[in-house]
Amino acid sequence: MLVGEIGEEKLLEEIRRIFAASNSSLPVAIGDDGAVVDCPPGTEQVWTSDLLVEGVHFRKDWQSPSQLGRKSLAVNLSDLAAMAAKPATALLSLSFSSGCDVGEITDFCRGFCEVALDFGVAVAGGDLSGSPGGMVISVAAGGTVEAGAAVLRSGAAPGETIFVTGRLGSAAAGLRIIDSGGARGPGEADLVRSFLEPEPRCREGQALAEAGVSAMTDISDGLSTDLTHICTASGTGGLIDTGSIPVADNLRQAARDRDWDVSELIMCGGEDYELLFTADESKAGGAIRACAAESGIGITAIGSTTAAAAGLMMSMPGGGEKELQDCGFDHFGGGDVG
Amino acid sequence: MLVGEIGEEKLLEEIRRIFAASNSSLPVAIGDDGAVVDCPPGTEQVWTSDLLVEGVHFRKDWQSPSQLGRKSLAVNLSDLAAMAAKPATALLSLSFSSGCDVGEITDFCRGFCEVALDFGVAVAGGDLSGSPGGMVISVAAGGTVEAGAAVLRSGAAPGETIFVTGRLGSAAAGLRIIDSGGARGPGEADLVRSFLEPEPRCREGQALAEAGVSAMTDISDGLSTDLTHICTASGTGGLIDTGSIPVADNLRQAARDRDWDVSELIMCGGEDYELLFTADESKAGGAIRACAAESGIGITAIGSTTAAAAGLMMSMPGGGEKELQDCGFDHFGGGDVG
Repeated sequence: MLVGEIGEEKLLEEIRRIFAASNSSLPVAIGDDGAVVDCPPGTEQVWTSDLLVEGVHFRKDWQSPSQLGRKSLAVNLSDLAAMAAKPATALLSLSFSSGCDVGEITDFCRGFCEVALDFGVAVAGGDLSGSPGGMVISVAAGGTVEAGAAVLRSGAAPGETIFVTGRLGSAAAGLRIIDSGGARGPGEADLVRSFLEPEPRCREGQALAEAGVSAMTDISDGLSTDLTHICTASGTGGLIDTGSIPVADNLRQAARDRDWDVSELIMCGGEDYELLFTADESKAGGAIRACAAESGIGITAIGSTTAAAAGLMMSMPGGGEKELQDCGFDHFGGGDVG
Repeated sequence: MLVGEIGEEKLLEEIRRIFAASNSSLPVAIGDDGAVVDCPPGTEQVWTSDLLVEGVHFRKDWQSPSQLGRKSLAVNLSDLAAMAAKPATALLSLSFSSGCDVGEITDFCRGFCEVALDFGVAVAGGDLSGSPGGMVISVAAGGTVEAGAAVLRSGAAPGETIFVTGRLGSAAAGLRIIDSGGARGPGEADLVRSFLEPEPRCREGQALAEAGVSAMTDISDGLSTDLTHICTASGTGGLIDTGSIPVADNLRQAARDRDWDVSELIMCGGEDYELLFTADESKAGGAIRACAAESGIGITAIGSTTAAAAGLMMSMPGGGEKELQDCGFDHFGGGDVG
């Protein structure tokens, strides 16, 4: 059945029923003029919002509606993870045409709700709108953090170690594989999944904050852009040891098979949704390794912060250094905004 | 200059500079992964989000970019007003093409910031995205309310009085005037302004909550739809005294000149962004009249709540009653979602 056939009120009822599983603990039921959100004593809230636009961030033939729903919330939770906030609330606004299938929208909402339930998020409200063109998804997500404990991009100092969680470049490779006709074999299919089904590092972000990391962001725009954000905000330079960047075996294999430059995928590709952070290793190194052991996702030292005057550099595999160019995606021809 | 010529980072810098005036009191500067929001002790937060889609909610030739910026925040603040929350924070996400003029985007942001400054809102973050089609504006706004003091749609009881602020139908008339080629004379120009420049009733919403109103919403979808929301959520019926609904003289004049049904504009038109609320007049009537006197916007009793079984009725000018049909806008052919 098409959305235009059941109309807005009935579709809303259906959507509210799907999200009811997530929001039973809300002070006020979904459906009022606004969502009422608890503020536990001694906490601040962290809020973030992301737009996903059909034809820019996704195409409908790339994934199932449920996968798109999952990713729409996951990328917002990744921003909360990067601030070390505990996810709590999401608002979902959708714009789509009346020719959309009702099942497509409800499947989207079911995927969105699955991630909400995984991370303890109440889907508390939002908006529906018609669209004269493609689908637009807008999510705002809020989380709590102890007052003053949010981890900012600006907290790094020269001489600290730069770390990343997980492995980089897989999502960018997954997008290229989709663009070039699809996966050849299970290794490439896993890369496609890295792009379509990112896992926000919320628990890791909170644990790393307790471990005492100094600055943190998530890798949404590519390592070059996201590291630039930390170093610029902190007033430091940075030196990346290119050979130490963690790369999955299936990415190395796909790059050999398809003659791709792995470094370009890592630096410019984005959408890994891993955490990039800095820490004074002498103080926090032990606790960071304990986080890695507990989470099982891997945490790797990939370089160090330097004085601002030294700029942003990367060591080359054959020896020597070269300047690290910010090559992340620019929406207007000139990167995701974070 | 076109957005595609200056690129995303430079445009972002420009936008952050515009919003700096609004957000100097934020715990963390704009531009991190998320916005950090204070939670004063004993408060809850109210969050709302609205999408505005080019070709659905607005056309660029209807108004200046600055007017569109003002309205984009105002309609979200109206939702906070309807919950009696004090506005505090906004996140602005925009999707537009690289062929957009930079001045159009910065003028939009200046208008948005003017309303933010008027209502003490910190513009704390958001997102930018390219667009393959028209412009999409997504705003999330947060405010504070004493814990437990948000005014819900569900608090009305039978036998209470139904009130509205201001005058109804002017915005819907303004849209029709735009659609039919523009204003003929200053009275009609004022109606167009009602549509393009709504004033959120934030101070009035907070004062009415203190006066002891029982249920409240804003009139965004038309009186019929918004009253249905209150009566359904509260489990009451309602009887509207059609003759008592406050209508501006210039609307009566335009309706005579153009042979329009004023009642249809009021019931089905929406976008008035006035407050619709209920109260036990014997307890709260005096305080409500004091609010009206102080704010100067006018508050009018337009009917009363009844038992649910009596349904939603309207008294006719010639005598008798008829059922009140929910005729607000349906985005999918079958109203704004609130």
